[in-house]
Amino acid sequence: MDIKEANGPSLTNRGRWGVDDDRGTLNFITDAARARGAAEATTGRVVSLAHPITPVPMAAPIAFAEHGMPAPVLQTLTFTGSPAPALTDVLLINVHHARSTHIDALAHIPVDNTVYPGIPLAEATAGGTVSRSSSSAFLDGIVTRGVLLDLAPGGRLAENHVVTADDLAAAEKRQGSRVESGDALVVRAGWVSADDPFGPLPTTSRSAVEWMAEREVCLYAGDIGDKLPDGSAEPPVLHDIGLAQLGMPLIDCLNVAELAQVCAEIGRYSFLFALGTIPVRGASGLPVNPLAIF
Amino acid sequence: MDIKEANGPSLTNRGRWGVDDDRGTLNFITDAARARGAAEATTGRVVSLAHPITPVPMAAPIAFAEHGMPAPVLQTLTFTGSPAPALTDVLLINVHHARSTHIDALAHIPVDNTVYPGIPLAEATAGGTVSRSSSSAFLDGIVTRGVLLDLAPGGRLAENHVVTADDLAAAEKRQGSRVESGDALVVRAGWVSADDPFGPLPTTSRSAVEWMAEREVCLYAGDIGDKLPDGSAEPPVLHDIGLAQLGMPLIDCLNVAELAQVCAEIGRYSFLFALGTIPVRGASGLPVNPLAIF
Amino acid sequence: MDIKEANGPSLTNRGRWGVDDDRGTLNFITDAARARGAAEATTGRVVSLAHPITPVPMAAPIAFAEHGMPAPVLQTLTFTGSPAPALTDVLLINVHHARSTHIDALAHIPVDNTVYPGIPLAEATAGGTVSRSSSSAFLDGIVTRGVLLDLAPGGRLAENHVVTADDLAAAEKRQGSRVESGDALVVRAGWVSADDPFGPLPTTSRSAVEWMAEREVCLYAGDIGDKLPDGSAEPPVLHDIGLAQLGMPLIDCLNVAELAQVCAEIGRYSFLFALGTIPVRGASGLPVNPLAIF
Amino acid sequence: MDIKEANGPSLTNRGRWGVDDDRGTLNFITDAARARGAAEATTGRVVSLAHPITPVPMAAPIAFAEHGMPAPVLQTLTFTGSPAPALTDVLLINVHHARSTHIDALAHIPVDNTVYPGIPLAEATAGGTVSRSSSSAFLDGIVTRGVLLDLAPGGRLAENHVVTADDLAAAEKRQGSRVESGDALVVRAGWVSADDPFGPLPTTSRSAVEWMAEREVCLYAGDIGDKLPDGSAEPPVLHDIGLAQLGMPLIDCLNVAELAQVCAEIGRYSFLFALGTIPVRGASGLPVNPLAIF
Repeated sequence: MDIKEANGPSLTNRGRWGVDDDRGTLNFITDAARARGAAEATTGRVVSLAHPITPVPMAAPIAFAEHGMPAPVLQTLTFTGSPAPALTDVLLINVHHARSTHIDALAHIPVDNTVYPGIPLAEATAGGTVSRSSSSAFLDGIVTRGVLLDLAPGGRLAENHVVTADDLAAAEKRQGSRVESGDALVVRAGWVSADDPFGPLPTTSRSAVEWMAEREVCLYAGDIGDKLPDGSAEPPVLHDIGLAQLGMPLIDCLNVAELAQVCAEIGRYSFLFALGTIPVRGASGLPVNPLAIF
Repeated sequence: MDIKEANGPSLTNRGRWGVDDDRGTLNFITDAARARGAAEATTGRVVSLAHPITPVPMAAPIAFAEHGMPAPVLQTLTFTGSPAPALTDVLLINVHHARSTHIDALAHIPVDNTVYPGIPLAEATAGGTVSRSSSSAFLDGIVTRGVLLDLAPGGRLAENHVVTADDLAAAEKRQGSRVESGDALVVRAGWVSADDPFGPLPTTSRSAVEWMAEREVCLYAGDIGDKLPDGSAEPPVLHDIGLAQLGMPLIDCLNVAELAQVCAEIGRYSFLFALGTIPVRGASGLPVNPLAIF
Repeated sequence: MDIKEANGPSLTNRGRWGVDDDRGTLNFITDAARARGAAEATTGRVVSLAHPITPVPMAAPIAFAEHGMPAPVLQTLTFTGSPAPALTDVLLINVHHARSTHIDALAHIPVDNTVYPGIPLAEATAGGTVSRSSSSAFLDGIVTRGVLLDLAPGGRLAENHVVTADDLAAAEKRQGSRVESGDALVVRAGWVSADDPFGPLPTTSRSAVEWMAEREVCLYAGDIGDKLPDGSAEPPVLHDIGLAQLGMPLIDCLNVAELAQVCAEIGRYSFLFALGTIPVRGASGLPVNPLAIF
Repeated sequence: MDIKEANGPSLTNRGRWGVDDDRGTLNFITDAARARGAAEATTGRVVSLAHPITPVPMAAPIAFAEHGMPAPVLQTLTFTGSPAPALTDVLLINVHHARSTHIDALAHIPVDNTVYPGIPLAEATAGGTVSRSSSSAFLDGIVTRGVLLDLAPGGRLAENHVVTADDLAAAEKRQGSRVESGDALVVRAGWVSADDPFGPLPTTSRSAVEWMAEREVCLYAGDIGDKLPDGSAEPPVLHDIGLAQLGMPLIDCLNVAELAQVCAEIGRYSFLFALGTIPVRGASGLPVNPLAIF
């Protein structure tokens, strides 16, 4: 399958920044984009965009208790002696858990056994780690302007609604916002996918991804995105095209409730978007806590 | 042992913000402090303060290969089918690993079987997680002004040097900086503890911690801190007093090389300090990637 | 507390086999005991004494699915490539899980911060592993005669029944069995603790442990044992005295349903007891699958 | 590729015991085979056939120490309180580690994206576990007669020697042994693959596997087997044909040093082979400690 041909030249960035590139649309974050972001930080008011995770104990000190389902994070809390000079933890993280706010690295979704920007999968995974288009691309921090498009102010989109380019453009117009090259796009549909990842969540259309490509957004983050693999006949275009072809990192399962409130309250939908991922090289994704700073 | 009495009233904050407090010196981050931080963000230039971690494969796809020592992060890279529709990961994180940039939650170090602000250890760890003074206090993000004090510009402190209040004050004067209430204090000694955690690293004196208490810094982050538990006769005052008594979170094993270069280059030692920890409740600490934004 | 004195000389074996001993009552397995066991193996009919464990997936390949409670074993099934040359697994085992058939090493329960045969806890756990009275004592295999005492043939003991020496002696008489020095004692109460570890399970009295000490059984294995720590006012004598003082390994959560049927069917309650624990040194216990061979 | 045709009818058992079979050559263990095994147990002398594993600490209580390479088993030793009422462990097991004595389940090696006896890989791995031809087949215990063929008594085979049917037949003759249907075949080449899995180890030829098929051995266990995947041009016939086509479970990395000594000493090369795997369903393999009982 030649997606490039089938979709027109705008729907892949494979090759656009060379064969060694692993940053994809993060390349749109120029000095100007970062300065535009910094200009948004005035009061220092901060909003977390992550859903808190309550870890499930793996074992002791309560080996015998009953727990709920495996959370995105399992914890072994440990006393380091008796009496205990310190408390420590081993955390076991299931990176792409459906209830966890996490970023997808570009290699997360292979296409025809290659990963962005066209590396054979076997080469990209040699050595038991992801050697190409991995979380390593995020190490230096992702700092730019963020723009919230609230698709359903004060409410939520209809069940199984498919978000189009028109929906995004309408939100821009309603808010008086303008998404520019290098901005981080934050979408609110009014659903909490972390609470019910298998529910009748809205999803995203190809036209919406085309809109993102045209606007040159540097990443997509939303309270909705694609349906889960087994949830629908709707193709997962954010993953299959946005992530794998455009090289646009995705943040799944974002928490935008407080962000939307603050934006509405102050009448401004743009902010400094600041994300420092935990500094782990070679992963297919990572749990994140992006900050919106006003 | 009554540290409060032995050390004078200034060396504990236990009780200062009530029995329900779990934020300690993060309470110093007022609106004014955050605004002071935001004012530092002008160009959007960003510097990561974390040492990258190369994870060690736990297992497949290279079950048979030889690896180095257990890193702070172990990785199980997984193909989700054959052929593979996606790559995923399970990460196993040893939070307080000596080679990892990580934040200590206030409960990390108990004193007399209590944790800040005086909670019995058994109560604070009921249920196999840390229910008091844990990583939950960091969920909303730590955003304030950061100030770098470079104790050895262009070089490094002598082996086993013990940093005093005078060292900190001298750096302030040399730089023309002034650490204020609510600032995040970033210290550079010119050593990379991640490379050689058992080496002859400089350490920190009680007078330095007194200085931090007096200045009301909201957290301490440095390329050095205390000696490791088995490394020295010098008491670990940052952990035993700073963390456990003052309630001042510590970031161990910071990466300040690039930060020092940038500060020297632009002649400014203050910046917007932005830290969004992964959103895990109830841990004794977490790996971090704090960002300095100019 | 001096348990030795309080309980009389027979209720501790600490010191009996010297300060370097880590086998405890396994020392009762003499050549004669093993030969007595071997003599029981005639037809080769085999019965497993473990409850099967269905592991819960940690992550991929079904990152998105919902699961039940954390099982004793978590599994990361992994394809080693795309297409997959092999399937591999990483298993995470919570050793002392209440629903898992497992053996307790003698160091599992400290007494006054010492472990059998009197080693300070700090010394026995130096280096992040159990260096004394650990699973290392089981490496060579535990092979001897096993004897089932069925305390409630065809039914089950009353709720919260406390098993006494008289109960054990009565079963012996009823069956025409005789537990001898070095035998592995297998007890059936007719309850499945794996199914409901917090239910009104029968438990064990001090007199029963005294009987085991007198008979010099080499280990205790049962479908019941002690109540869970938070389940009852009844002291956990099998753990506090049997394991920690007598040095008698315990196998918790045994599966004896089929064993009891076979014994009743063939009219013989003794068999070759064969246990080869996974060869992990330095653990506080291990999951097991003991075999009864007729 | 149609292995069946290429190799002649004797080199696959796919279909032989029906489409629901997951036991493969374990079906050869009849009552007669088990009785033949039981008859070998006379003195009860026992020899472990596993290499002990020293686990590497994952974390606390020695978070700061340096360790060697990731072992087959990682351990988090945990105190369950302060002071500690108990010690517990979380063990992380890399099942098919090259230095670990472990059994391969029949599904471990797919052929043309199917697993024994011909199940599509996607079906056999649905649900994040191995639902067909997994470790579940071993739950009831593997008890039969074992026969050691010592291919190099008192010494070891030449480097990179390829074991043939003739080698096996010669050993039988030299020892006066006769491998019969349902026996567990134990091979000694005099090498310790656990010590140097990448060394110039002997390996196994197709003719040797044909010999095993003809003799209807129920499993293969050896101090050598196939070369590691990246070690040689020699095809891994034990895995690709023996395991995947014949349905003959393999035990890699066996410890036979003591076994060979005992057999030579008593002049008998057969014994009761008793293996109770840890009772984990749905795995691609498991660590094991098989026992030879004389």
